[in-house]
Amino acid sequence: MKSIFNKLKKIIIKKKSNVCVGLDPISSRMPIDDLLKFNYEIIDSTHDLVSAYKPQLAYFESFGPNGLQIMRKIVEYIKNKSDEIIIIGDGKRGDISTTSEAYAKSLFDLYDFDIVTVNPYMGFDSIEPFLSYEQKGTYILCKTSNRGSEDFQDLSLKNGDKLYEYIAKKISTWGSPENLGFVIGATYPDQLLKMRENLHDFNFLIPGIGEQGGTVSEVIAAVNHTGKKNNFLINSSRSILYASKNKDDFFYYSREKCIELNNKINESLK
Amino acid sequence: MKSIFNKLKKIIIKKKSNVCVGLDPISSRMPIDDLLKFNYEIIDSTHDLVSAYKPQLAYFESFGPNGLQIMRKIVEYIKNKSDEIIIIGDGKRGDISTTSEAYAKSLFDLYDFDIVTVNPYMGFDSIEPFLSYEQKGTYILCKTSNRGSEDFQDLSLKNGDKLYEYIAKKISTWGSPENLGFVIGATYPDQLLKMRENLHDFNFLIPGIGEQGGTVSEVIAAVNHTGKKNNFLINSSRSILYASKNKDDFFYYSREKCIELNNKINESLK
Repeated sequence: MKSIFNKLKKIIIKKKSNVCVGLDPISSRMPIDDLLKFNYEIIDSTHDLVSAYKPQLAYFESFGPNGLQIMRKIVEYIKNKSDEIIIIGDGKRGDISTTSEAYAKSLFDLYDFDIVTVNPYMGFDSIEPFLSYEQKGTYILCKTSNRGSEDFQDLSLKNGDKLYEYIAKKISTWGSPENLGFVIGATYPDQLLKMRENLHDFNFLIPGIGEQGGTVSEVIAAVNHTGKKNNFLINSSRSILYASKNKDDFFYYSREKCIELNNKINESLK
Repeated sequence: MKSIFNKLKKIIIKKKSNVCVGLDPISSRMPIDDLLKFNYEIIDSTHDLVSAYKPQLAYFESFGPNGLQIMRKIVEYIKNKSDEIIIIGDGKRGDISTTSEAYAKSLFDLYDFDIVTVNPYMGFDSIEPFLSYEQKGTYILCKTSNRGSEDFQDLSLKNGDKLYEYIAKKISTWGSPENLGFVIGATYPDQLLKMRENLHDFNFLIPGIGEQGGTVSEVIAAVNHTGKKNNFLINSSRSILYASKNKDDFFYYSREKCIELNNKINESLK
């Protein structure tokens, strides 16, 4: 059977890149006033350096229905460019069973994402419709990169676990490393280390470096602990997209930042 | 200051209706093959009986970008029909601060929803951007109606609370009953009773009657306990929308089901 996380692993090895570029088009920060062209230029200048792109649905939605039309075109554009890039739809969805089915259907079938992010709060029947796509992938939010993740995800349960630990352990029994992974923020390297020890076969999506404050060296120290170098992605969005405000050179600086990030990761991995 | 939940209370009193009709357009179940017309006919035949409509974003999204264009038209259509209907955008969003800002902006400004549903898992900075819209409203998922809600929401914390109790209590200090409410499933009447006792000033959105198995009498027994009759909505979606599969009479039976539900609620409230 085809497994998207196996494919991702092969891409990471071949391209020597654990980099995922988050496509967060924020109109007030974009150096050009054209949603489609901005994303195309970022992709043109970085596609050989990355193993994945991660369109953030919130930002495409903020452009209205047309923003989603453009998001669909961008997914197509990436797929036409290369078969060696994974596309992650970051919408953090989750609802009761039949409604999650509708979300899974539109994200996987209509928008053709390879992997999507899902919020675990509503439990099994909210997650199962995503996992039932055996050739697609699902990243479950575990310990997120934002400060607010401390409010509930860190709560201590009666059994001694933190909430995020319990959730990840439980959900790891509902799927397999073939189509299930976890989101852990770079801003919490100790928790990342712990989760890597517990769930070392699963792929991790690690956002939060750069503007959010996480550092590559701390992340790599944590992931390296298990000796598995090919089953994680480090996501960077704004530091790459908005490296320059200048319409004539932003794609150049995005590429530079991308090379810099990839080098830093590969140095640390040695 | 204008408060959307105060407005909702006035509408509930004036229309003698705690009914919210969920707009869940599922193409395989719709009696006519026209997303816009189907919703318009449901609205035409029920608008005088309900205090709120709740478009479910997952289903509109499943029709592609055009589905969202139509959702926007439907919100406009309801607002033009009457000022005495509240519109709830049910998307269960939530992300890191700046991304939640983008979600809040599109749901409140672009789609003009009065209230939205938000998932609490990511904590304060994921919720605050919604609450900062003082004249809009936010329903936080607390104990959801689906079976999967038992997986994590019911977990016992070290301090003795269930997770959903802790989350609701904590978040109740971040907002006020003027613009904050909670979602509790009709399928869990004991938990509903407990939450009503703890948070009696807040509005509750109660889904899960009908196809999901909750009953009006149990819900009303729970909400009635506090003596507050005007700060809750009972949502019904499929039992009303799909009361008939016949294109010539579905709107008639939707109206009948709506009257029936409203009568049952008002009888139980006496």
